[in-house]
Amino acid sequence: MSGLTYKGTGVDITRAEDALSRIRERVARTKRPEVIGGIGAFGGLFQLAGTDTVLVATTDGVGTKLELARELDRHEVVGTDLVHHCVNDALAMGAEPLFFLDYFSCSRLDPQVFARVVGAMADACSAHGTALLGGETAEMPGMYQDGAYDLAGFLVGAVARDKVLDPANVRTGDALIGLPSSGLHTNGYTLARAICDRAAARAGTSVAEYLAAARRELRGGTLGNALLQPHTSYLADVRALRAVARVRSIAHLTGGGWEGNLPRALPEGLGAAVDRSSWTVPPLFALLGNEGAVPDSEQWTTWNMGIGLVAVIAPDDERAALRALPDAIAIGTVEEARGQQRVRFA
Amino acid sequence: MSGLTYKGTGVDITRAEDALSRIRERVARTKRPEVIGGIGAFGGLFQLAGTDTVLVATTDGVGTKLELARELDRHEVVGTDLVHHCVNDALAMGAEPLFFLDYFSCSRLDPQVFARVVGAMADACSAHGTALLGGETAEMPGMYQDGAYDLAGFLVGAVARDKVLDPANVRTGDALIGLPSSGLHTNGYTLARAICDRAAARAGTSVAEYLAAARRELRGGTLGNALLQPHTSYLADVRALRAVARVRSIAHLTGGGWEGNLPRALPEGLGAAVDRSSWTVPPLFALLGNEGAVPDSEQWTTWNMGIGLVAVIAPDDERAALRALPDAIAIGTVEEARGQQRVRFA
Repeated sequence: MSGLTYKGTGVDITRAEDALSRIRERVARTKRPEVIGGIGAFGGLFQLAGTDTVLVATTDGVGTKLELARELDRHEVVGTDLVHHCVNDALAMGAEPLFFLDYFSCSRLDPQVFARVVGAMADACSAHGTALLGGETAEMPGMYQDGAYDLAGFLVGAVARDKVLDPANVRTGDALIGLPSSGLHTNGYTLARAICDRAAARAGTSVAEYLAAARRELRGGTLGNALLQPHTSYLADVRALRAVARVRSIAHLTGGGWEGNLPRALPEGLGAAVDRSSWTVPPLFALLGNEGAVPDSEQWTTWNMGIGLVAVIAPDDERAALRALPDAIAIGTVEEARGQQRVRFA
Repeated sequence: MSGLTYKGTGVDITRAEDALSRIRERVARTKRPEVIGGIGAFGGLFQLAGTDTVLVATTDGVGTKLELARELDRHEVVGTDLVHHCVNDALAMGAEPLFFLDYFSCSRLDPQVFARVVGAMADACSAHGTALLGGETAEMPGMYQDGAYDLAGFLVGAVARDKVLDPANVRTGDALIGLPSSGLHTNGYTLARAICDRAAARAGTSVAEYLAAARRELRGGTLGNALLQPHTSYLADVRALRAVARVRSIAHLTGGGWEGNLPRALPEGLGAAVDRSSWTVPPLFALLGNEGAVPDSEQWTTWNMGIGLVAVIAPDDERAALRALPDAIAIGTVEEARGQQRVRFA
């Protein structure tokens, strides 16, 4: 049996990069003087004329976690996910959320499912002091499979100009503080689902049975439940961290895993030395990796492996940060980049 | 042969209203003090603390015009549509656009198609002085039909607090100024496509041939081309209008047609008397209505019937408005509402 890769399951990040590269100049031409920074950040920055306020805008989806939530009748999870994903992207730019809008698209609207998904979004917005300012509901017969729906979220946050997190401020020797994830969050589900499909077929059971079985590796929990934990919101943690530490930059570990995201919080020429023994990779990742015979490097560039957000802070503040955030982990330091790969696992 | 209705083709606006009504209270709980106005406006309003600036946020999709654009290999149109649709919604609140973000979702990314769609969005943003500030590209194997993709757009605009267009300012006797549409814009395509499918089958031709045939009713043009005109942007017209007239409110005629949108620009208790003889309904609408035997009332609550935007202005300014905008049409006046239907065709 050959191991599974993300690309092998039909998701090819280089294809998206190719697509973007074709229109980079046309996108660059839309730039207004208020726009700060370039492409590749976790959110777009727009300084409001005549004010000290920078707006941060971000858009996200939930990916094929949608399909799993639908199959297991857990629609609330993806509503929560969408808000938390957007909130974390805003945090990575230094911002606090102001308002959120959603796009809900399907072939035939099921009012009950809609209410569960968007109701959960509303609750997540409330919990974050974020206004649910609008939304669009699209019914497009024939576009989606029966019962399937897609979601997109848009969030605008704000930050004072001098509080914008800028990777340019990161220095060699800065400390990397990792915050635990609750699971896959919202990335790498196409690979995870392919693993489950294949493992279920091998075991001669249905995927539903496979996902509902109590697993020793998960302390008696089910894979279905482990895969449907909501994306962690780091709002409270990041607030607490900023109160005690000089935060230079933040990486939200989403699609592309470690190599795909940690360098987004670093300036050119710098890399990260990450000590993988500083935390225990949660059993969910080991289980999926084993069942799918997924190469180690593939796991780390697809999944977050137990850390959902990495803050780069001044080295002197590491102790205060760890005291303020009991779950936080000192996972490494910033160093000169040594090659193509900017994340070096020590 | 029975006539076609929008509901009969699988799109039921009451279902969406039912869905929304289930979560209204939970959405209301997300309200922050900065949020102005309620649900039902063309965009959400958020006043930035300590400033005179109100942000206007809107999100839209393109609906099943996507499918037609794909079938006829006219991907650029839907990119343009998405930006123009959002811009017009911002205009309806009195705002000018600041920045735009897009969500592009598919089963397998075709970089060439992506570049055509999002490239056209970027060009439309440039033409409107709007920054394309970010985007999300989602590849979700199995979610969509081969080659299908979905789009969502998100736009933030700004307006000074005292320039926000508020339907509460509308008075009986105010003038209604209509601006011509280029066609269906981005609404009612599920019905239009059902009509074409049925008419092609009746004529014993393929839908592609039916859409590509020169039509006497369209002065030799094809139905395919008429259906793929881009959604008109009214930015320049609205600027010119506001320069010469006291604009009270604006309705962008999108999903729900006349009755679904014009009342959104009116206060409770007021209605609109619209003189349908003041403009000629473009032949595209008559052709579709005839081919599908679509009841008249159904056409007017689904399509814009040739008017894409209605501005409510002070009656004394009507003459100046018509002088400043050669294409504009005086289509009626505001009156006391006389019943359930708030748009009365005279």
